[in-house]
Amino acid sequence: MHFSSDNATGVAPEIMAALAEANAGPAMAYGNDAVTEKAKAALAELFERQLEAFPVATGTAANALALSVLTPPYGLIYCHRHAHIEEDECGAPELFTGGAKLHLLEGPHAKFDADTLKAALAAAGPGVEHHPQPAAVSITQASEAGTVYTPDDAAGIAAVAHGAGLKLHMDGARFANAVAHLGCSPAEASWKAGVDVLSFGATKNGAMAAEAVLFFEPTLAADFRYRRKRAGHLFSKMRFLSAQLLAYCSDGLWLKNARHANAMAARLAEGLAALPGADLVHPVEANEVFVSLPEPAIGAMAAAGVVFHRWGAAASRTVRLVAAFDTPADDVDRAVAAARRALGNEA
Amino acid sequence: MHFSSDNATGVAPEIMAALAEANAGPAMAYGNDAVTEKAKAALAELFERQLEAFPVATGTAANALALSVLTPPYGLIYCHRHAHIEEDECGAPELFTGGAKLHLLEGPHAKFDADTLKAALAAAGPGVEHHPQPAAVSITQASEAGTVYTPDDAAGIAAVAHGAGLKLHMDGARFANAVAHLGCSPAEASWKAGVDVLSFGATKNGAMAAEAVLFFEPTLAADFRYRRKRAGHLFSKMRFLSAQLLAYCSDGLWLKNARHANAMAARLAEGLAALPGADLVHPVEANEVFVSLPEPAIGAMAAAGVVFHRWGAAASRTVRLVAAFDTPADDVDRAVAAARRALGNEA
Amino acid sequence: MHFSSDNATGVAPEIMAALAEANAGPAMAYGNDAVTEKAKAALAELFERQLEAFPVATGTAANALALSVLTPPYGLIYCHRHAHIEEDECGAPELFTGGAKLHLLEGPHAKFDADTLKAALAAAGPGVEHHPQPAAVSITQASEAGTVYTPDDAAGIAAVAHGAGLKLHMDGARFANAVAHLGCSPAEASWKAGVDVLSFGATKNGAMAAEAVLFFEPTLAADFRYRRKRAGHLFSKMRFLSAQLLAYCSDGLWLKNARHANAMAARLAEGLAALPGADLVHPVEANEVFVSLPEPAIGAMAAAGVVFHRWGAAASRTVRLVAAFDTPADDVDRAVAAARRALGNEA
Amino acid sequence: MHFSSDNATGVAPEIMAALAEANAGPAMAYGNDAVTEKAKAALAELFERQLEAFPVATGTAANALALSVLTPPYGLIYCHRHAHIEEDECGAPELFTGGAKLHLLEGPHAKFDADTLKAALAAAGPGVEHHPQPAAVSITQASEAGTVYTPDDAAGIAAVAHGAGLKLHMDGARFANAVAHLGCSPAEASWKAGVDVLSFGATKNGAMAAEAVLFFEPTLAADFRYRRKRAGHLFSKMRFLSAQLLAYCSDGLWLKNARHANAMAARLAEGLAALPGADLVHPVEANEVFVSLPEPAIGAMAAAGVVFHRWGAAASRTVRLVAAFDTPADDVDRAVAAARRALGNEA
Repeated sequence: MHFSSDNATGVAPEIMAALAEANAGPAMAYGNDAVTEKAKAALAELFERQLEAFPVATGTAANALALSVLTPPYGLIYCHRHAHIEEDECGAPELFTGGAKLHLLEGPHAKFDADTLKAALAAAGPGVEHHPQPAAVSITQASEAGTVYTPDDAAGIAAVAHGAGLKLHMDGARFANAVAHLGCSPAEASWKAGVDVLSFGATKNGAMAAEAVLFFEPTLAADFRYRRKRAGHLFSKMRFLSAQLLAYCSDGLWLKNARHANAMAARLAEGLAALPGADLVHPVEANEVFVSLPEPAIGAMAAAGVVFHRWGAAASRTVRLVAAFDTPADDVDRAVAAARRALGNEA
Repeated sequence: MHFSSDNATGVAPEIMAALAEANAGPAMAYGNDAVTEKAKAALAELFERQLEAFPVATGTAANALALSVLTPPYGLIYCHRHAHIEEDECGAPELFTGGAKLHLLEGPHAKFDADTLKAALAAAGPGVEHHPQPAAVSITQASEAGTVYTPDDAAGIAAVAHGAGLKLHMDGARFANAVAHLGCSPAEASWKAGVDVLSFGATKNGAMAAEAVLFFEPTLAADFRYRRKRAGHLFSKMRFLSAQLLAYCSDGLWLKNARHANAMAARLAEGLAALPGADLVHPVEANEVFVSLPEPAIGAMAAAGVVFHRWGAAASRTVRLVAAFDTPADDVDRAVAAARRALGNEA
Repeated sequence: MHFSSDNATGVAPEIMAALAEANAGPAMAYGNDAVTEKAKAALAELFERQLEAFPVATGTAANALALSVLTPPYGLIYCHRHAHIEEDECGAPELFTGGAKLHLLEGPHAKFDADTLKAALAAAGPGVEHHPQPAAVSITQASEAGTVYTPDDAAGIAAVAHGAGLKLHMDGARFANAVAHLGCSPAEASWKAGVDVLSFGATKNGAMAAEAVLFFEPTLAADFRYRRKRAGHLFSKMRFLSAQLLAYCSDGLWLKNARHANAMAARLAEGLAALPGADLVHPVEANEVFVSLPEPAIGAMAAAGVVFHRWGAAASRTVRLVAAFDTPADDVDRAVAAARRALGNEA
Repeated sequence: MHFSSDNATGVAPEIMAALAEANAGPAMAYGNDAVTEKAKAALAELFERQLEAFPVATGTAANALALSVLTPPYGLIYCHRHAHIEEDECGAPELFTGGAKLHLLEGPHAKFDADTLKAALAAAGPGVEHHPQPAAVSITQASEAGTVYTPDDAAGIAAVAHGAGLKLHMDGARFANAVAHLGCSPAEASWKAGVDVLSFGATKNGAMAAEAVLFFEPTLAADFRYRRKRAGHLFSKMRFLSAQLLAYCSDGLWLKNARHANAMAARLAEGLAALPGADLVHPVEANEVFVSLPEPAIGAMAAAGVVFHRWGAAASRTVRLVAAFDTPADDVDRAVAAARRALGNEA
């Protein structure tokens, strides 16, 4: 019963098979191979347009490298206070951008809206040399609170960003989960909503270690490959990254995996929220559940072998449980049952 | 008949099997897993001492991150003019060190010696604020010319480096090939010869994408993990890096693979060097062959389907052929035969 | 009637004289001269202890270079949301630290307190590789709101900082104004209150362009000179920086100048605050006055030739007026009179 | 008898007078003042064209900031092995460019020629992601050996640079001395010869601390002011930098000073070269003399109170003597006489 993170899962069998298949004989290094070509084509097809796609192995690399082409070193990147790029990348954006600053925005459930961005931009000093210069906006999809920006949300933010000459980046480490929730197309959730660059994550959703940085505006991609290389993120045997992405895009695997993870999170949320004294801290829109529980329930789950994280301050009763592409429904039910029993709520 | 690079090979079957095996159920992310523990223990055992080991996925990451803890941003790193860190990493050491400079040393066959280092250090300005400050030395093992530093070579360089307060890094992207050539132990080729930090490569020798940064002096490793993370090189599902390293260190796989590659390179060198008008450009000590050939021989090999690179200036008759862990002896013989036929040397 | 900034003033006559005097014949470059020696001795005497002093020419250089030795590139610097290093240095700390992050704290009148810092540190993740690591704290003295940290304020912050292993930097661009307000010694306002490094400003208080970075803990200064040089802030004819600092420290010039500026600010504040509809936005403790005024008063002052800045949002009725070492009392009185007349308050 | 450096001189009286004159009353900060306007106009007039001029205080700042807009962080800057930016700036170009690399070229007397650059560019890998990308060329005028690039020299280099898409920077710390030698106009020595950006030095030639970065192609200057500010090189009381530059450009002061310095160097060179056993190491074209002397002559000069530096290896008999705008002819003659006497060559 492992709900600590979608990073704790293994690799989907379809992707393991693709890795084995890619291992048939030699191939040119550094992406000059047939599998990489196919993966790029598959991504373009999935997103229904020409694009520039760059495989990398981690979400932090995808985000920080993407941002590095959107901002000068004296630039400002607007993001939510709880964005992954702010809280969980140990300063990677600052490293790869050469010292750009993140400007933190507020908003409930780890999302900010167009008006908040607008107000922040109004207070900035574009053209004033004393101030860092507004350069880019980054939104996390799904957010760190497990919530999802609708295409309208994103489009509103994009309009403000573009109106001020800023580019819009989407950290899509859980993009699949967001699309599964929205029921729209990948295109609608990204470039049709104004996203210029997308970190398209696969690792959390069944890949071994694979993300793609997607540039919908090819001119933005002009120097990305130099930045990727000098960051040590150009893989010599790149076909093994590409094979993961290709399998991920094939036969709807990405969406199938995400739907399952979301469904398991919903099942978990429903079960836990029904308990006396339980409260969902954030709406459950993707594959993460943040729930405030009575202490006995938390203790009972842990005792029953459910793995999860407490969240926030030390004394908090909030826990985070993350479902993944391979979470068994039975694990969900047993976790809920353990909590329920502890509350004398045998149903 | 693929001799373009040891990067063009696939993955050794033992390592593919290890990846599959590591995929059994969830595991804690970011290296807090059993496979990573085992891999670290295996590396310590292989090198016969306590050490700090950090898996990363590319050689460029291993080198640049290793160097980043050995030099301040105003430091000098001494290396050969043809070091990989100088020529083929697009400035990664400069990025990760915050702007340190590489000071280039000369020497035949892509190796420099202790005296050359000594002379360079004598001309430096330690303590003079106008000058970048000597901080580290880096040697490439095997070198970019396919030659190998003996333990005595390395110890001589280490003595000069340490005498001046500098640390010694070894870029061991082809460390296995070097050790296979030397016939010594990994310890003798590294820390016993004064190496402080080793980029221990596996990718070129049968892994999918795995290297380990090994700190023989644990205090040097104190902040490596922050640097790895902010560079986007901390893998969430790290067990899949670790599994590669574990298999690589197990049952002598690393050495078996390297010996085979070296043997194939020697066979190739012997065959080609015997041709009329052929000259080995560098001694063949590891798995790379640099050979000057009559144009008809070059053309004939290409026509026969042998894949390789021309080397150096456009009009050069020098070619590089790289053997790998899985190079068939028959491929070697057919490549030589193609060249031989072109020279009317049917023997 | 120039109240736009203390940067708009000229140079105190004592300092102009010192520059002329320093221009007698050649002297060794880069600080190996007698004037620089004397300036360092004068600073040590003023602060009543041994210290390491480095002249630079701008406050931004002083701050960013000081911070660069207090934090690794993956570090966090805690400061107020309205600190000069955050708002008005275009990312200089990020450049010189190699990408460290500023963590912004809240507090009224541009000051934060020990408890706020404590809470922020409690929420940080020291030792967790995903998070930037707490490294330093910076306070602005006087603050950007013209308020002053008492020695007790600073000592409280220092205790929290040091308790967590962080160093305390003080941006003392207006340190003289703060000390003039406090009536304590420079030592009491700095190292005796726990400050490890002080940017000791002179430019705003009568110098042409001179600040000193003072390290009270000499070990912290070990590599400062390399960082100063590579930032282009080592002056070849350094005696002309040193001469300014020497004159500034001599015969109490620094304090005399600051007392006058503070007195003029107080006079201005008293006059304006007495007007109907006027409100002081921040306590006036140093040489800056932030006051909310009826629009007619603002317009009348501008029409009368008073130079000042509106502050905050475009529609705000808040203005900032800054007094300096050479502000004539008559200018103050005429500015107040202009405002008073506009309000039909002829007194 | 001070020949240690032109940095050891004081400030020309015309420039001291200008500083005093600029100190009349308040002026808007950060360059929004009348003196700065006039200085910019004077520079444009001197160079006979529209240009963008940015005052800074040190040559290292001028060079490194200029280069920072000419290269991406993964770029290559071509310069001579003995360029000031390579040898004497402690890595400032690397800091301000975010990690670009200097590619060192060879050539006698610290100059390289167009063919050498051409050959280096031919060996580079433009468009190959493994290699840093050629971005800029920098020449030092006068060179670190006191030699001068003719307009034809510079134009030849510019043609190669521009042909490959690179920009040409000139480090003109001693530009005035070079122009005095060439007898051409400043325009002919800079933009008419293809220079895109010039570090126009004044400090070594009579200013207190003032250089101007001149962009002849205004589009290149677009983000310079942000880079200057975040490097701490935007002066609040900028009029005092500008006043120096204005006086320097007025009434031919810059040229008068340089001509004198050059004449004194020539006189020194003539006197010393005539001594038995003496050899000029480099042609004396500007204000620096590099001469190999018998040990007794070196000792005798030092004993007589002549201040100068030995140059190169410890055991070298080469000394460097630098003349300046205010070097008395009598000092030159006495220095030569001291050396002559030591060689029993009383003339």
